Amino acid sequence: MNEAMKSLRTLQKTMYGLNYAMCVIDYDAQTVAPSESSAGRGEALEQLSSLQYGLIASPQMPRLLAEAKQGELTEQEAAEVRELEKHYKQISCIPQEEYAAFSNLTSNAVNAWEKAKSADDFSIFAPYLEKIVATRRRFAHLLDPDKAAYDVYLDQFEEGLTMEKCDAFFAELKATITPLVQKIAAKGCQPRTDFLEGSWSIDRQRELSAQVMELMHIDPAHCILGETEHPFTSGFYKGDVRITTHYHEQDAASNLYSVVHEGGHALYELHNADRLVGTCLAGGASMGIHESQSRLFENYVGRSLPFIRCILPKMAELFPEHLEGVSAEDFYKAMNTCKPSLIRTESDEVTYCLHIMVRYELEKQLMAGTLEVAGLPQAWNALMKELLGVDVPSDAQGVLQDIHWACGDLGYFPSYALGTAYAAQIVDAMRRDLDLDKLLEEGDLAPVLDWLTDRIWQYGAEKSPEWLIQNACGAPFDPKFFTRYLTEKYSALYEL
Amino acid sequence: MNEAMKSLRTLQKTMYGLNYAMCVIDYDAQTVAPSESSAGRGEALEQLSSLQYGLIASPQMPRLLAEAKQGELTEQEAAEVRELEKHYKQISCIPQEEYAAFSNLTSNAVNAWEKAKSADDFSIFAPYLEKIVATRRRFAHLLDPDKAAYDVYLDQFEEGLTMEKCDAFFAELKATITPLVQKIAAKGCQPRTDFLEGSWSIDRQRELSAQVMELMHIDPAHCILGETEHPFTSGFYKGDVRITTHYHEQDAASNLYSVVHEGGHALYELHNADRLVGTCLAGGASMGIHESQSRLFENYVGRSLPFIRCILPKMAELFPEHLEGVSAEDFYKAMNTCKPSLIRTESDEVTYCLHIMVRYELEKQLMAGTLEVAGLPQAWNALMKELLGVDVPSDAQGVLQDIHWACGDLGYFPSYALGTAYAAQIVDAMRRDLDLDKLLEEGDLAPVLDWLTDRIWQYGAEKSPEWLIQNACGAPFDPKFFTRYLTEKYSALYEL
Repeated sequence: MNEAMKSLRTLQKTMYGLNYAMCVIDYDAQTVAPSESSAGRGEALEQLSSLQYGLIASPQMPRLLAEAKQGELTEQEAAEVRELEKHYKQISCIPQEEYAAFSNLTSNAVNAWEKAKSADDFSIFAPYLEKIVATRRRFAHLLDPDKAAYDVYLDQFEEGLTMEKCDAFFAELKATITPLVQKIAAKGCQPRTDFLEGSWSIDRQRELSAQVMELMHIDPAHCILGETEHPFTSGFYKGDVRITTHYHEQDAASNLYSVVHEGGHALYELHNADRLVGTCLAGGASMGIHESQSRLFENYVGRSLPFIRCILPKMAELFPEHLEGVSAEDFYKAMNTCKPSLIRTESDEVTYCLHIMVRYELEKQLMAGTLEVAGLPQAWNALMKELLGVDVPSDAQGVLQDIHWACGDLGYFPSYALGTAYAAQIVDAMRRDLDLDKLLEEGDLAPVLDWLTDRIWQYGAEKSPEWLIQNACGAPFDPKFFTRYLTEKYSALYEL
Repeated sequence: MNEAMKSLRTLQKTMYGLNYAMCVIDYDAQTVAPSESSAGRGEALEQLSSLQYGLIASPQMPRLLAEAKQGELTEQEAAEVRELEKHYKQISCIPQEEYAAFSNLTSNAVNAWEKAKSADDFSIFAPYLEKIVATRRRFAHLLDPDKAAYDVYLDQFEEGLTMEKCDAFFAELKATITPLVQKIAAKGCQPRTDFLEGSWSIDRQRELSAQVMELMHIDPAHCILGETEHPFTSGFYKGDVRITTHYHEQDAASNLYSVVHEGGHALYELHNADRLVGTCLAGGASMGIHESQSRLFENYVGRSLPFIRCILPKMAELFPEHLEGVSAEDFYKAMNTCKPSLIRTESDEVTYCLHIMVRYELEKQLMAGTLEVAGLPQAWNALMKELLGVDVPSDAQGVLQDIHWACGDLGYFPSYALGTAYAAQIVDAMRRDLDLDKLLEEGDLAPVLDWLTDRIWQYGAEKSPEWLIQNACGAPFDPKFFTRYLTEKYSALYEL
């Protein structure tokens, strides 16, 4: 290994320590931290961010990167250099104090968002979001004054993504989804869901979570399930990945699909190649690819008839009062009811991307400066009416439902739609090699995990999203797989 | 503020961020982390320790300290300089890699200790402890080649403490305790404890914990109670202090006194002056002073008759099947049974310091190199027989019971005995100003908290242990207060 590369490896190890610390602090904040502790946490995160900045944007970084590239590099080393260069470019144009202060701001913003959501009072969160939007716009200008601010962030979450591409992608989705939703509504009948009503013991939901994680081969010695307001995954390193869920006593599906969704994220990181540990390549290739794995498990596994055939008897043992006499077909239909609703994370596969489009449109306007934070709730409600046809009764069930903006993540949401569409194409490719339906019905997920490890998970961020899709599917990304899947699945379900 | 002092303030803020991170990582490890995640955590801690080292032992530190001292300094600034100088001296003679690697070692050692304790297999922990002892001896030699290794660490936990002083202190305690234990044994009768037997609902023990914390004015918005194998306190900063307990279904006293003990630690840090936040003075003055506060609440408050008069009705409501018809005097006597036993944290006030002496003797020998780790269980059992007259049935209930050595803390244990004795003198002084018994019986702890805040808690590490004792008690430390307290309390209890 050349000397510069050795220095870059040492630097990545230090970055690993700081990233690890920031992940634990964030996990602690969202799981157990006392309610009035965000001030000191924000301060600590500011200090750690400043150290992180000092490492990545250090004056010797350009020289080290240039020297490393002049030497012989393995494929992995070249990828590390590429990623470090990207980080350097993204960070070094921002002043250190402002970069560090942003961590402090978002840490306190998450605390304010939690309070705002639980009090259903947007005004508690608004001043934080205003600062976040202003800072993000300023940073974008520093990063690339010639580029639209939102394009700067779309590219950070998914390399090469732009508003132009997003507009085309969403237009294509909408062309399928809107008529589909209309046809389903016109059909005027919905499957029975009476057995979903009533109370689902949270203790037994916890047992179900453990069974689902076992079925997914998620080893509790390396991955635990916590409970939070908003489910998420945090990978400290491949030997310690945390997922969380939220239990609702009136709704068993919410936890079930949270566990399967976050479990998909977790499996990705748990199956990174060992050689990536401690490097900047550990984790996922992009948020789009990451969401493709979670959405793959949530929808293409979790909401499929074969998987429901496998899991329903286990659920019926835990919840006989709900599920005795309910057939797999009944449960499958109930889990795939298409009905415009308020909450993204609980929405069906057809309307899900409409929820994303609402956020995408609003982010575009916030970043362009054509929408003020003060006008956000109204704009949210109007778009929900326009795209989903629903009336939003409260900000808690509206603009305050997601944590992402509080975390400073503007430009993340399109990853969910992109990931969902990636997943359709990946599953299509997987079916050429595996009898997926049979495996799911038998609860034998090991071959699925092996297939994904081999083609995607092992690589972390070593390969680009494009490379991974091409490698897994033998073709570049095409949203047709997703629109076709939706049309076929829901035409059959609703006998259109 | 002079320029050097400004630089030192900035540096302390960065140290605050790193300390905060290491506290959270440690808290996470002991509360929720998955069982097989210590490798990556150890790596992260090694990196953070290395950064910490780079800050404290930086080449410009001696210059900054010297320049700061040449300028005008407030009392607080002078204390900061004094503490930073101490840290610099303690760390800079150790090579950076070795200092950092020790964090990794102890992180993995804690994991091994947990497994060893639960499997009752000392051999799982032994290789880690061997490395810890060897490293501590090597570090001590680097710190001061002319000083006995154990004296180096005694001084780190309690400035000025030496084996000579400890020997004299423990000899004085022993001269009171051993005859007292013998007289109590000779008396041949014990108070009734039948009502302590049987099962104590853990859910209701949790409720009791919350009531006790409320009584102690511990604000749950700033201090939460977790559950761990070994109870502890971790102060992230004065706005976020974590305490933990362990619930035993067969033993309600264990949790009760863990909460009161750790609550005492927590109150100390929660009442640091605001001006100390983010400086190296936040926290406690020494481990001895810290333990004086926890032991003060555990024993002089928690095990006193007036406090039991206050808390028993609350407990009887939660546990009527145990406590109906039990008088405060009965409960007081049961909570103060003097009986040599196996577990330090559950031992009575009389025999407690004998448990400390066992550990003190063993640490002395380990640090002197006259005892090998392999011989530790045997030596432990022999000393327990000699000092307490008990036979140790298993290493889990013997040498493996405490976490401290796994954390690398050799020299910590004497702080417990010292703190216990400090507390006797502090309570004696407090009684001159407050009608303590009346306040405790009425459950009115606010004046006690104010008294301790005023004299001790506000100062953090700004003042030395000696100064604090003198300030609180109007006289230097004298163990007589403790031996007199023990003799009087237990002579009355056992009618000697």
